[in-house]
Amino acid sequence: MKIAIDVMGGDFAPQELIAGAKNYLQENDDAGLILVGDEKIIRELWSDLPEKCEVFHTDEVVEMGEHPLHALRQKKNASVAVCARLVKQGKADGFISAGSTGAQMAASLLELGKIKGIERPAISVMLPTSGDSGVLILDVGANVDVRASHLFEFALMGSAYYEKICNVERPKIGLLNIGEEEAKGNELTKAAYAILKDSSLNFIGNVEPDRLFQGKANVVVCDGFVGNILLKTSEGLSETMQGAMFKAAMSLGQETVAQFKNSIKKFSPSSPEYSAAPLLGVNGVSLVCHGKSKAPIISNAIKLAVSCAKSNYVDLITKELTKNS
Amino acid sequence: MKIAIDVMGGDFAPQELIAGAKNYLQENDDAGLILVGDEKIIRELWSDLPEKCEVFHTDEVVEMGEHPLHALRQKKNASVAVCARLVKQGKADGFISAGSTGAQMAASLLELGKIKGIERPAISVMLPTSGDSGVLILDVGANVDVRASHLFEFALMGSAYYEKICNVERPKIGLLNIGEEEAKGNELTKAAYAILKDSSLNFIGNVEPDRLFQGKANVVVCDGFVGNILLKTSEGLSETMQGAMFKAAMSLGQETVAQFKNSIKKFSPSSPEYSAAPLLGVNGVSLVCHGKSKAPIISNAIKLAVSCAKSNYVDLITKELTKNS
Repeated sequence: MKIAIDVMGGDFAPQELIAGAKNYLQENDDAGLILVGDEKIIRELWSDLPEKCEVFHTDEVVEMGEHPLHALRQKKNASVAVCARLVKQGKADGFISAGSTGAQMAASLLELGKIKGIERPAISVMLPTSGDSGVLILDVGANVDVRASHLFEFALMGSAYYEKICNVERPKIGLLNIGEEEAKGNELTKAAYAILKDSSLNFIGNVEPDRLFQGKANVVVCDGFVGNILLKTSEGLSETMQGAMFKAAMSLGQETVAQFKNSIKKFSPSSPEYSAAPLLGVNGVSLVCHGKSKAPIISNAIKLAVSCAKSNYVDLITKELTKNS
Repeated sequence: MKIAIDVMGGDFAPQELIAGAKNYLQENDDAGLILVGDEKIIRELWSDLPEKCEVFHTDEVVEMGEHPLHALRQKKNASVAVCARLVKQGKADGFISAGSTGAQMAASLLELGKIKGIERPAISVMLPTSGDSGVLILDVGANVDVRASHLFEFALMGSAYYEKICNVERPKIGLLNIGEEEAKGNELTKAAYAILKDSSLNFIGNVEPDRLFQGKANVVVCDGFVGNILLKTSEGLSETMQGAMFKAAMSLGQETVAQFKNSIKKFSPSSPEYSAAPLLGVNGVSLVCHGKSKAPIISNAIKLAVSCAKSNYVDLITKELTKNS
């Protein structure tokens, strides 16, 4: 088992990507790593590179501002493209990147292609709930204008992923909506409801955002515009609230601050499934890391990539597609 | 100046509605009140009804589960319909209700009608930010499938309301989106961007949800589906987070709890503009209160209704429409 790492992408690349790879190898030995990036820089930062860690040299990288497709056409050996290619060629079993999400989506589509039967791959993220298990939301930004059949694809892919990665049989699937009743919502959600109701999935109906954080469903689907708004609303509000509360805690002393940091740990869970967002629907394991990810998150993302590769959720998606076709 | 109060609507009706009216009259004398509801119940709860407080008897009420239009057709004297009618007839200068939002929207449309030139009235709410001023979001649920021209209407109405109620000249108008660049978003937001850019409004471009909570814009527009998701995500997450933090504070003693309650006051602001959601675009002042509103909020909502009636934002909307037609 080998995982490719795009060490050139991300706000803290290559340092934190390389540090994350180191962390991973210190604690785990079930996968080898392929560091994709500038070999000179990599060897400067990690002089005693262990045997389990290969380097694939490339000095091309897609920068954050660049148009993904234009950039990939000009830079055939952009680090993110090389990572996807290694997976395609069977030289790696999955890859992670913290660079441009658009470029990673484009590279994954170009190199790995889509799973047969899937029209719209989607970005999915796991969010914490007040319950014991997280909720997987998709799409959170890859597809801003979709049809009801795409929401069904998202549900099917999310279900297969959640089943394999979280070990839950027939995960509960919800449709993100502004009311619980079947008749609620816009044209898109009403049409999607009808499809989901008749599918083989464990569809539990509409889920409102407030119930979502209570862990009502395991997987919740929505179009990429709405999903991205939901994600950024959660991030923005959670930062704003944490800021105000820390300020209050500071005036009460260090012990209080520590106590509070502890109380909000739930909102920054440390288990691997929260560390990266899988691109579901592409024909291979491609995990998007947040641009701001530091070494511990990167190390977790590698663990998640290993679980993904072992679980073979891609096969389960194909099977479920057949069942519903 | 008179404000009509639907004392029959809301989770804590009629008690908290009547208590809110009492609170208001204890502290303010710039408006008389008309309590709309079952006179017998009202007089039981408030035996020494002051002169400034009239009663308009009706024993009909739209229940929460009922279909708004069906219910209003059968119950001509439903409390919410009577309130809207009093405003239409000039016997009240505005009204508030904590009952079914759908019924209030329908009653407002049937009795008051729309402002000439407005196709889609919208529900707007003020949310707190980490800055000094709140941000008005619309639509948050009245219109789930809209065109770009409707988002422009929302912007124009929100601008007029914010200018009058928050005393800000040419409020900054943002378009809720998943990226800041003009080309970002779905078909709807791209089309709306083009219209807003060429309008007389103080349009500052796209606003992502995380920047929204930083107070980047005064008014942010979106379709009612997305706005409702944003609102419920904020409510749900904020409750979940507050729950976890209070739990932590409890173990540190009463003083800590008090300190923390104080730190999150910002997220439940006590000034009137946060107490109710104006239905903008209907031809009169109609304020939606949360179903769970208790007396202090109701009292604030009455204050807001008075400000709204005095400010005459309805006229400003009409003027702005002419400027942009």
